Formats: sequence, structure tokens, C-alpha cells
Amino acid sequence: MTTGRQLKSTLTSDGTLTLALEEKEFPAPTGNQVLVKMEAAPINPSDLALMITGVDLENADYSPGKIVAQMDPRMAATQAARHDKPQTVGNEGAGTVIAAGDGEMAQALMGQRVSCVPGHAYGEYALADAMMCLPLGDHSAEEGASSFVNPLTALGFVETAKREGHDAIIHAAAASNLGQMLNRICQEDGMGLVNIVRKQEQVDLLKGIGASQVVNSSEDDFEKQLASAISDTGAYLGYDPIGGGKTTDTCLRAMERVAASKMTEYSRYGSNQAKKMYIYGRLDLSPTILTPSYGFGWTVSGWLLTPFLGSCDMETMMRLRQRVQQGLTTTFASSYKERVGLEEMLTKDAIMDYAQMKTGEKYLVTPHG
Amino acid sequence: MTTGRQLKSTLTSDGTLTLALEEKEFPAPTGNQVLVKMEAAPINPSDLALMITGVDLENADYSPGKIVAQMDPRMAATQAARHDKPQTVGNEGAGTVIAAGDGEMAQALMGQRVSCVPGHAYGEYALADAMMCLPLGDHSAEEGASSFVNPLTALGFVETAKREGHDAIIHAAAASNLGQMLNRICQEDGMGLVNIVRKQEQVDLLKGIGASQVVNSSEDDFEKQLASAISDTGAYLGYDPIGGGKTTDTCLRAMERVAASKMTEYSRYGSNQAKKMYIYGRLDLSPTILTPSYGFGWTVSGWLLTPFLGSCDMETMMRLRQRVQQGLTTTFASSYKERVGLEEMLTKDAIMDYAQMKTGEKYLVTPHG
Repeated sequence: MTTGRQLKSTLTSDGTLTLALEEKEFPAPTGNQVLVKMEAAPINPSDLALMITGVDLENADYSPGKIVAQMDPRMAATQAARHDKPQTVGNEGAGTVIAAGDGEMAQALMGQRVSCVPGHAYGEYALADAMMCLPLGDHSAEEGASSFVNPLTALGFVETAKREGHDAIIHAAAASNLGQMLNRICQEDGMGLVNIVRKQEQVDLLKGIGASQVVNSSEDDFEKQLASAISDTGAYLGYDPIGGGKTTDTCLRAMERVAASKMTEYSRYGSNQAKKMYIYGRLDLSPTILTPSYGFGWTVSGWLLTPFLGSCDMETMMRLRQRVQQGLTTTFASSYKERVGLEEMLTKDAIMDYAQMKTGEKYLVTPHG
Repeated sequence: MTTGRQLKSTLTSDGTLTLALEEKEFPAPTGNQVLVKMEAAPINPSDLALMITGVDLENADYSPGKIVAQMDPRMAATQAARHDKPQTVGNEGAGTVIAAGDGEMAQALMGQRVSCVPGHAYGEYALADAMMCLPLGDHSAEEGASSFVNPLTALGFVETAKREGHDAIIHAAAASNLGQMLNRICQEDGMGLVNIVRKQEQVDLLKGIGASQVVNSSEDDFEKQLASAISDTGAYLGYDPIGGGKTTDTCLRAMERVAASKMTEYSRYGSNQAKKMYIYGRLDLSPTILTPSYGFGWTVSGWLLTPFLGSCDMETMMRLRQRVQQGLTTTFASSYKERVGLEEMLTKDAIMDYAQMKTGEKYLVTPHG
């Protein structure tokens, strides 16, 4: 029996949210399970949903290894299914397999450094499914820590676009680690990509890695630039991690502007060009605003990694995983602003910083660091 | 050469909108064209888009057969493609074929009463495509006037639902002529239907024609009632003619509430149940508001009759048209509040009334009445 600390997030019905490190006993792995000594785990926006969404971090109660904070009661009420049920956090990470079940796949990983997707990566140890582990070979845990969520999401965007018959896409908040991966994938695959960023330094960053279409939403003629980039590439499908506000609306309007400019006759219903935006994150929790300005040929839809993976056959899954493995330090390289231990990630300074989910400022948790 | 009055809508770049009856010469029909003496044409919301959207009707200049009004300049600017180009109005109507091209289909309709979809139905005469005409037999022009837009839209909703694997749907603003047709179709086809209305008299009306699920959005426990109806029917697909505001959002939230109540484990991403809303009209021109409260398993999309028909093969088209023809005075019966001549439809009293697009208060234009 291995014992180690593990981060849990517990919400009560009155809206009290507790993030706390707890001692946990890990049973010996069975079948194709492996026990991984966790060395590095990224803090992704998808992890933060369970940790900080709707929570007053400024006025929370901070003690070593523990945060007690209040959530907006209306939001807490909508999450009744998790009331009083401690949730583990941390989707993915990397570490070394220190015990394995007697299954063949598990045994093959014994002693190896792997990346994994245990769903409880913020802890000293994790029980993981060997089939979902990726052997890292000589790569460091840090190099392998983010080898699941971002790489497969970026590959999933391109795969989805191809399935739906597109050869160009738009990506908003495009300077993120994910956005940089997407640029490299699109260049490799010959998929057109329009990057939307909001700072000149992000324009420079993406141009530096070969992006040909980068538009800056802070510039006065942003919408005109966006339309021009859509016209150049034919991008009528986009991915928006912001969700709230008008990002998706702005993209649909720009698509329609381009499509309408190619029409010879006026139509009260707008252009026939199908326009689609996927919302895959909620960096902005305010409502999505859709103006009635692009006719009826549009679709806005949620996009999530799990159902996408569920839609892939085994061959596709293997192809995507193999591609990640081969491109771990190139196409799929990630970078981090800070490395924090388990206690440090629960300090006010740290959480107030990574809670902002700023582009290019990702944190890495190093449980034994 | 036949000469008759015809309603046209002209927008200038400065936002002046003119609705005016003009004398027009109709050439002799050729090929499979027919010339129809128009006897009845409904005023549908889709017709009004070109006539009144964004226009100040209260302060317009009214003279016999002519309205000159101002459109919001920002809205006028987005419609550059129609500036200074007179647009005909009136999608559909019914009348008698008084001349026919030498094509076989056209000749077969000579002298018959037909419904048609000329796109310029608000006039004394219309040139129509014989292939799109529906012979009305002994039915009156009024009985046949609305045999295209509403019947095929209602059939299209059910057809779309079946294609996408649904056996129940939601319809908002459900007491309309279209909504009543939809109730009869769903009963005939065994498709579950949740009707959303906003007045008790509309509840009574729909229950009177056999609707089993009608929820009133004016009642305090509306959202609870809606969730209950969704739970009873399994309706995870809906159609919203309002578009602006929170109707679509309310439906998605209610769907999620039902789906989440069936989950055994909490998921930060919401339920896996796919939820979809089609916006097929814009009775409310304010933005569509989508709150971040139903995870990522949702889609909102525009729905329009023309691309739907384009997606049907000839056999499906024939089946749908035949069904309309057979059910003209039963399943697909329409009712009208007022009948107006061409000049009368341009009076302030009339247009201020039908511009409100109130449920159950449709106008019928009778050009020779």
C-alpha cells in the first residue's frame, strides 16, 4: 500500500468550496492499472473548472495545503450533483511507473516514465489505465506532462475540420500552448489557419513559428483584417476557447461579410455559405452573444475532447497518439511560466495568478519537486 | 402583355425605405412558366424581413399605395447589397393560371387555380414556375394561399428531427399557424412535441387540437414544467422562431436539467446528452443570449426552408408536396385575422398591426379583392 497526498475539491450545498491536500492510500494496481509516482502535471483551464469557477479567491481562507472559499450560491445550486462529494483534480501528468497490475500492457510499463490521464494528477501518486499511458522514453516528465489534453485537442480540431470538409479554420486566443501546437499541426497538414490574438507580442510569437495569418483584435481595423484573412484562406469553421461575449459572433459576422461580398444578388436570408463556430472553453463565463446579422446559415456548437475521442475508431486513436509521441519536443512542445509544489499551488499568490489563465502563463505542478 | 400593380421594397444607402405599388408589365410566360392572376397571398414573418425590419413605421410618410420610412442607418449599412435595387415581396400565394408557356407542365395548369411561390406574390399578377405550383382543384385561393412556406417548414422540422434520430421535439411560440400544423403532423407521425406558448388561451387552443404537452412561459414554474415535459417526451431538439433573447437558452438549460438528473456521477463538463436548438426566425431582433450552463454537448443552428428543400431528394419533395395537397383544409389549414387589398396593406393601421407578427393574427392580401 502506497500513501501520498492528493488534492481534492469539495463543494457543499451552501456554496463553501474547499481545496485541500488529503492523505490517500493507493491500493496495489490490478489488471492493466499502473501506479505512477507523479513528477509533473500542468494546470489547464479544464482543470480549473472544478477548482475556481465562480469562487471568491480574493477573500478566501488560506492555510498550508488548504483553501476555503465561497462560491456564488446560484452557481453552487446548479452543481447539486457534486455537493459534499470530494472531487479529485488534475486531468493529466507524467511520472514513473512504480507498480503494475498483472496485465500485459501494465507489466510492459513497469519502471518506465510515462504520461497519463488519471483525473487525479495533482497528487504524489496516481492510479492510471495502462492503455491511456504514453511511454516517454528519454523525455523528461516535464516534456511529457501535457501530452494528452492540448495535443489531442489541437489534433482533434484539425481532424474535425477535415471530417466536415474544411481546409481552413479560425482559432481565437491563438497564442496559447494549444494555439502554438495548432499552428505547427496546420503547417504540417496544409490546413489553412487564421489566428486571432489580442497583443502585438502574440502576433510576433506566432509569426515567429511560421504563422501566415495572424490578426490582432486590439487593432482598429480588426474586423476588416479578419474578413481579409477569411477571404484569403476560405476559413468558415472556427474554434473559440473564450465562449462568453462576442468572439464567436465576430467570427461569424466576418465570415458572412466575406461570403456576402461574393454574392451577385441580395438575399434577405443572408448568404448560403455554411458558417460554424465551436466553443471549446469558457475563459469568459459571461453569456455568449449572437447578433442577428449572418442570416440562417450558421451553427454554434460546444466541442469537448472526450466525445471527440469517443467518435474516433481505434486506428485513428493510435495514429493521433503516435503522432504526439513522435512530436513531443517539437510539434507538441509546451512551455510553463512557473513550477509549483502541491502546497505552493494552494497559496494565494499562486492561485490568484494561474486563475487568470493568461495566454502563455501556464503553471506546472511538481508534486515531488 | 399583361399589366398589373406590384409591391416593391427599395432601400437607399442613406436608409430611406420605400414600399410602393408600381405598374409592371408581365411578358407572356415561356417554357414551364405560368402567369397567375393572384387572388390571395399571406403576409408571413419571412416576407416582413424585406418590408419592415429596422424601419420606423410610426413616423413614416403614408400616401395611397406608398410608404416612405427611415431605417436605422447602421442596419441599412449592413444591407449594401440591396441599396437602390427594388426588391419584389411576397413569397407565396394562390390564384388562377391565365397564361402558360408551351412546356408540358405549364400547359397542364392552364385555367386551373394553383398555389405558387413566385417571390413577388403581392401584386395583381405573378410569373411562376409550373414545377413549384400546386393545383388546388376545388379549393379556394384562400385555402391554398399558405400551402408552401408554413406546411413545408412544419414538415421540414419533423423530417429534420427524424434524420437526426429524434422522436420528440420542442417548439417555441407554438400557437402560430405553423405551430398548429406542427401539432397535427406530430400527432399523425407519432413524433413527441413540447409546445411552448405564453398565454393561457394559447394553451387552450393547442390542447383543443389534441396537444398533450403545452407549457406556458408566463407561469411562475415554467422552467420546471418545461423540464418535466422534456423528461416525459425525451425532446432534446427544439425549434425557436423568436431567435433573440433567452428562449433557446431556456430550452437548452431545461434539457440539461433533465439529462443531469439522470447522471449517476458529477461531471464538470455537463451531461453527455446532445442538446440542439434550431433558430428559424427572428421575431425578436435582439441578440441571442447563451449562458454557460449546459456544458459542451449543445448546438445552436439556423434553420431555413430553402436549404432544407435543397437537401431533399425528388422523391421526398414529391411526398411532402402530396401530403400538403391532401391535407390542405385539415392538417395544413391556415386562418387569417384580416383580408386587405394591395393599397390597404400599405395603410398605417394595417402595417402597424401586422408588423407586430402576433400569434394567430396573420393577414391575407387579396390583390383583386
